[in-house]
Amino acid sequence: MELPEGYNFRRVKVTDHNEYLDVLRVLTTVGEINEAQFKELVDHWNSVEGIYYPQVITDTQGKVVATGCLVVERKAIHQCGKVGHIEDIAVCKLQQGKGLGLVLIQGLTAIAEKEGCYKVILDCSDHNVGFYNKCGYTHSGCEMVKRF
Amino acid sequence: MELPEGYNFRRVKVTDHNEYLDVLRVLTTVGEINEAQFKELVDHWNSVEGIYYPQVITDTQGKVVATGCLVVERKAIHQCGKVGHIEDIAVCKLQQGKGLGLVLIQGLTAIAEKEGCYKVILDCSDHNVGFYNKCGYTHSGCEMVKRF
Ligand SMILES: CC(=O)N[C@@H]1[C@@H](O)[C@H](O)[C@@H](COP(=O)(O)O)O[C@@H]1O
Ligand SMILES: CC(=O)N[C@@H]1[C@@H](O)[C@H](O)[C@@H](COP(=O)(O)O)O[C@@H]1O
Repeated sequence: MELPEGYNFRRVKVTDHNEYLDVLRVLTTVGEINEAQFKELVDHWNSVEGIYYPQVITDTQGKVVATGCLVVERKAIHQCGKVGHIEDIAVCKLQQGKGLGLVLIQGLTAIAEKEGCYKVILDCSDHNVGFYNKCGYTHSGCEMVKRF
Repeated sequence: MELPEGYNFRRVKVTDHNEYLDVLRVLTTVGEINEAQFKELVDHWNSVEGIYYPQVITDTQGKVVATGCLVVERKAIHQCGKVGHIEDIAVCKLQQGKGLGLVLIQGLTAIAEKEGCYKVILDCSDHNVGFYNKCGYTHSGCEMVKRF
């Protein structure tokens, strides 16, 4: 799967602020995050090397139309192995149906493989299992949650 | 739930090397990890502040009998919220049935709440759902995996 002509897959920038947050609102609650707060977060992601890979897809105008983040966790198991966690996948409503979600997952999965992860995992709702199957992912367990 | 008399819940130390890895072998493949490799990993966990909380339970002799790690992820969603991930829960075979798993989950969950996480999540197999229900966790989604 490839991106449409003129679209790009790249790391998030501080200047993506409003566009980035607007796309995420498709997924869940975002709240109000001002420029300084967003900058602080992106700076944090950038400061801890090898952990966060927050990526976006931009359209022909350079506008952010999809988001996703890979978080790389270092473990003891599997010979001091690394696990990639795919998080916060969102595609803006008007751009759905163009295969951007698939390209996003492929891109984040490729980063995980390059970084030496022995596996990548993600959590999704039942109705998204089919989409992730198409991305080459298989069901492996139950997500459990406790909210505060 | 409380720990048995003389047992302790604390952060992992470099000197836990063999005991820590032996407990993890209950969970999955660990492989051979020498002292220097283990030290490098623990030093890494300690160097990135506010992300890794690798904890152990020790018995009356100070021996590591259970392991578990909380990984705190910083997100944009939920007002620049944090999510805690509980990972690598293992209780050594001879110490099972004493409620150590429950204390471990409660301890890691308490760290997540103190660190300001809006939720804690973990992935488990179907047959462990009952245990995590007893810990106050509810089923929330499907874990999907791609292995390399
Ligand atoms: C693959 C993927 O994108 N999974 C996301 C997860 O990354 C995100 O953190 C969560 C937010 O849900 P919440 O608002 O209920 O915490 O939704 C989905 O599970
Ligand atoms: C709550 C808990 O402890 N979950 C663990 C997870 O943290 C660990 O990474 C995985 C290893 O499985 P693997 O050896 O198949 O990667 O097993 C379980 O899902």
